[in-house]
Amino acid sequence: METNVAKTDVLLTNALVLTMDEAMNQYHPGAVAVQGDHIVAVGPEDEIKARYRAAEEIDCHDRVLMPGLVNAHTHVPMTLLRGLADDLRLDVWLMGYMMPVEREFVSPEFVRLGTLLACAELIRTGVTSFADMYYFEEDVAKATAEAGLRAVCSQTVLKFPAPDADSYEDSLAAARDFIQRWKDHPLIVPSVAPHAPYTCTDEILRATAALAAEFDVPLHTHLAETALERENMRRETGMPVIPYVKKQNLFDAKVLAAHCVHIDEGEMHTLLHAGAGVAHNPSSNLKLASGIAPVPKMLEVGLNVGIGTDGPASNNDLDMFEEVRLAALLAKGHSGDPTAIPAPTALVMATRLGAHALHIGHLTGSIEPGKRADLILVDTTPLHNSPRFARDPNNAYAQIVYAAKSTDVTDVMVNGRWLMRDRRLLTLNEDDLLAQAREVAHRIDTFLIKREQSVLSKLIALGGSMEQESFEVQVKVRLDDPERVIAALQSPQITIIRHKHYRQYDNYFFFADPQQGRVRFREDNLIDERGEVAHVRTRLTLIGPAREDSFERDVLLSRSRFLAPATYTLRFYREYFKPTAEVVLHKDRLRWLIRYQDTEFYVNVDRVEQPDLGYFLEIKSRTWSRRDAEHKAELVSQLITLLGADKQETVTQDYIDLVPSTG
Amino acid sequence: METNVAKTDVLLTNALVLTMDEAMNQYHPGAVAVQGDHIVAVGPEDEIKARYRAAEEIDCHDRVLMPGLVNAHTHVPMTLLRGLADDLRLDVWLMGYMMPVEREFVSPEFVRLGTLLACAELIRTGVTSFADMYYFEEDVAKATAEAGLRAVCSQTVLKFPAPDADSYEDSLAAARDFIQRWKDHPLIVPSVAPHAPYTCTDEILRATAALAAEFDVPLHTHLAETALERENMRRETGMPVIPYVKKQNLFDAKVLAAHCVHIDEGEMHTLLHAGAGVAHNPSSNLKLASGIAPVPKMLEVGLNVGIGTDGPASNNDLDMFEEVRLAALLAKGHSGDPTAIPAPTALVMATRLGAHALHIGHLTGSIEPGKRADLILVDTTPLHNSPRFARDPNNAYAQIVYAAKSTDVTDVMVNGRWLMRDRRLLTLNEDDLLAQAREVAHRIDTFLIKREQSVLSKLIALGGSMEQESFEVQVKVRLDDPERVIAALQSPQITIIRHKHYRQYDNYFFFADPQQGRVRFREDNLIDERGEVAHVRTRLTLIGPAREDSFERDVLLSRSRFLAPATYTLRFYREYFKPTAEVVLHKDRLRWLIRYQDTEFYVNVDRVEQPDLGYFLEIKSRTWSRRDAEHKAELVSQLITLLGADKQETVTQDYIDLVPSTG
Repeated sequence: METNVAKTDVLLTNALVLTMDEAMNQYHPGAVAVQGDHIVAVGPEDEIKARYRAAEEIDCHDRVLMPGLVNAHTHVPMTLLRGLADDLRLDVWLMGYMMPVEREFVSPEFVRLGTLLACAELIRTGVTSFADMYYFEEDVAKATAEAGLRAVCSQTVLKFPAPDADSYEDSLAAARDFIQRWKDHPLIVPSVAPHAPYTCTDEILRATAALAAEFDVPLHTHLAETALERENMRRETGMPVIPYVKKQNLFDAKVLAAHCVHIDEGEMHTLLHAGAGVAHNPSSNLKLASGIAPVPKMLEVGLNVGIGTDGPASNNDLDMFEEVRLAALLAKGHSGDPTAIPAPTALVMATRLGAHALHIGHLTGSIEPGKRADLILVDTTPLHNSPRFARDPNNAYAQIVYAAKSTDVTDVMVNGRWLMRDRRLLTLNEDDLLAQAREVAHRIDTFLIKREQSVLSKLIALGGSMEQESFEVQVKVRLDDPERVIAALQSPQITIIRHKHYRQYDNYFFFADPQQGRVRFREDNLIDERGEVAHVRTRLTLIGPAREDSFERDVLLSRSRFLAPATYTLRFYREYFKPTAEVVLHKDRLRWLIRYQDTEFYVNVDRVEQPDLGYFLEIKSRTWSRRDAEHKAELVSQLITLLGADKQETVTQDYIDLVPSTG
Repeated sequence: METNVAKTDVLLTNALVLTMDEAMNQYHPGAVAVQGDHIVAVGPEDEIKARYRAAEEIDCHDRVLMPGLVNAHTHVPMTLLRGLADDLRLDVWLMGYMMPVEREFVSPEFVRLGTLLACAELIRTGVTSFADMYYFEEDVAKATAEAGLRAVCSQTVLKFPAPDADSYEDSLAAARDFIQRWKDHPLIVPSVAPHAPYTCTDEILRATAALAAEFDVPLHTHLAETALERENMRRETGMPVIPYVKKQNLFDAKVLAAHCVHIDEGEMHTLLHAGAGVAHNPSSNLKLASGIAPVPKMLEVGLNVGIGTDGPASNNDLDMFEEVRLAALLAKGHSGDPTAIPAPTALVMATRLGAHALHIGHLTGSIEPGKRADLILVDTTPLHNSPRFARDPNNAYAQIVYAAKSTDVTDVMVNGRWLMRDRRLLTLNEDDLLAQAREVAHRIDTFLIKREQSVLSKLIALGGSMEQESFEVQVKVRLDDPERVIAALQSPQITIIRHKHYRQYDNYFFFADPQQGRVRFREDNLIDERGEVAHVRTRLTLIGPAREDSFERDVLLSRSRFLAPATYTLRFYREYFKPTAEVVLHKDRLRWLIRYQDTEFYVNVDRVEQPDLGYFLEIKSRTWSRRDAEHKAELVSQLITLLGADKQETVTQDYIDLVPSTG
């Protein structure tokens, strides 16, 4: 009967085979025959052995043989940022740590190292395919191909300058170039990634969708990750996230949508009809408190929902075993239904459905003849996998989902090539990668430590426009009768150029080291004639630790100040700067810009209301030299007299220093 | 300077030491000196090395040295039931699988093997102390002490017969005996465990609290695990769970309360004032869909909240690394606050707070001089732990909580004794335990497979009272005019003994193999004179596959029937029996118990409403012999005539067989 026996390259026998195919076929003992890059047969061992002889025959006793896991959404180079900053709010984490560090460090070399390190971890934990989104994506692709893994590699495009592009046009051109050159690669599916609706313009969404459609490659994006995104979208466009991106023709492309935490059933149907896949990232969504995605409903609707780890900076690893377990547990706890996402479903999501979500379901995700040989072996002998019950076919899935660990993976094959045998990596030098990673971590540590040594550096690290205020002379006089001063401003010696009315709400941050100065977060409310708020502006000011100088009559040369528009919230700055103390000061300010003796001054009549410190006259003018400052100090002194204030009541401190608790 | 150098047994040097003490001291490089069973010193390496010389000095480079983890709530023998049944509702899981298998298999030998297997897993995953609750708890204690782990071992007491006791008095006596003999053990803290308020009587709660108070040992219990428990408690006693057990004097004892998912802030204060500890079990609470415990609030109130895995049958492992990570992630996702339970807090819960929750905080939970030497080493070199940042002291905790895996634990010491070195277990023979576990699993599989081969065995396995109905003769005749039959019942030849009116709602479960018969779930509503529901009863009936015999005039000898009160819900039985089809049948039944020719018959005038099959006369009588059956068949035939029904309209099928879809 030798005539009926075919030759093949590799025969895996004596395994518990979980095919994860549509019929959820299991074979025990089962066998798989591999020829070149693909699977030629799977079935009961005796049947397969009768049909095939192989050069390499591997006895998989005590092993589960299953398709490799599909990590449906990640940012692999961020492996180098794992554990850099945790337990922070999204904005503090992203804008205070991730983005400043990325601005400083992300380069083709960084991306290459991060990817190789990630690939080592992915292989060790049984992942054979993943969907990536980052900068310098061609370098991700090169490193991934070198490691031997399969990936959808998506070049990020967004409306801000990125580490790999000054403008979105540059990123888009890079994406086109990348896709053209890599679209026929056996392992890499090149792709484009408009980052998210709120970081892209309509033009970017349309252009990336057109590009992906032109080359028939997937489009990878973040959609409806947070409630804030959904609410902002609703406020700005009057529609939810999915209809909005549909309107921008996003679904002209084959979309892989990460997160989809905040979508409703209607949006699920839109995704379904568009053939879009979804990547569910339970660890990341919990860790960043984005919410819990309605996965059982998505599955009921019929969506291809894969499971992803997201980047290792928000997870903090690439362990799909943890992710699958969490997806299964979370759905139950969240829905109150302990039968939600049972183990077989969770494992299908992490394999076959995930591959479909990535639009590579025809290549991988299950063990079926004709599909690529992306296979893993999982050791069932470790303690935590014992005992094993065989009564119910679901027992095998439950063991993998609820009890097995990623460290049980012993062997990994991708595209017919072994990447790991007996826990030994065959395509990567782990020690070398770890040493390089240590070196990068040390440099990042040094950068951040230096930054965090000074409040000023932390302020600068936030980026954005920043001005150093010129010095100013200033004097402050306590008033009994503010009306008298206001009337005296009508003096013919004074020309009023402008008059404004503000209510100012200040929060001062104090630091253990007074030399660091103080940070003031000010909300300036401009009040109109009707007494209503006409405009609100927030500003962040770093106030130096000491006055520069003082002149006669207590006129001061003011402290150095660095200003920036406060584009984030008070809470952000509080959590970012971590002050040791915080003091609140509210005041009502009548401000005049006047000319006196050919010199411009700001005259403020302030009422400090919280804490109640009473009325003050404040006179200020910018200065640029010591001589000018001395001249202005003399004019200020004259003005105090002219306005009828009492020089004996001059105060040399800032308001904040008059607040009792801060001495 | 040799005079200042003390001798000690073990010196652990060159480690990143996380003491987890109140001040969260870290030393890097740090060292710990161990003498006998306890820690004598911890601090910077140079300082400790200057003070101590040791017989055994261990270089812990690239290792985190920290206190062993405390698993605050588990049922270790259930390791033998891991993966037996998953993704089921609590009642199906507990009453359909766990309890029947426990009834059949739990013995001192089972408990011993399960405990040893669990201890091997606990040691491997860095746990040095745990709180257990099970049956034959003294056998748990013996095996634990043999393995060398520290544990609070709690003998279960509950109002039902248990595998180790026919009555609660027996369990209570066993608990007293166990506590008396073990209370001074260096590793084991004996304890008593009233299972839960809903499985105990007030008397049990009071007696166990008194016992624990008498010997000053902890009392371990489940409190407020599910919303149902809270609602039932409120309905039955008018108060929430914690006040209720307080009223039963439970807090006379040092309580360890597992779960507390459904408690409010007032109850947290009650627990705090009682000095009670809480065990948070995030995996189990999610997996069984019990809910998400308000842990951030508990910590804010000041409770000692530990983290537990619960039993491996609802987790499905004893991996505290997974549990700590989940506790940290879940709090964030659930509260919407990404700063909730930051990594250091999560790790404190799993160590120092956990030890306090177990009332052994004076012994273990942190690295401090005087405490027992319960220590673990965690390897930081695996890929998933790289890179490592050192900028922020919190980086070290974040690495352990979010990235490290239990398989990174290399060495474990309890009470000054090594239980694992370089991942080699020193007190247990893993291969031997695994072989024994395989054998038990095989026996359980066989038991359940046999049970599941027949619907009858599944029914019997549920336990509870069960009766086999005696055979009956029966006939069914289609009626055009039911009123005529009702009027004819007034015939002088008939004596009416009783008359009732029912509405009957039946769900029939069908199985692939018709020989299995059918299961009928019936809700019987007794209707009073005013037409209102006076009483509701649910009954479960297994109806055999075929009639036994038939007589002339289509009088049938009815099918064999097994009846049981349906104490669970329709949904339970549906998920337990997993029928291949289900049919609903509703009818209105007027029932008379009559005497005719000295023989009692039931006469039913039924209107089958769903589906609408019209009116029927049914006449039935119990029988015990063929001869009696033949006699009654003759009488039934006479009755049909007497009641004016048309014999041509006799129907030989059950109502359910007249439903079109079921043929």
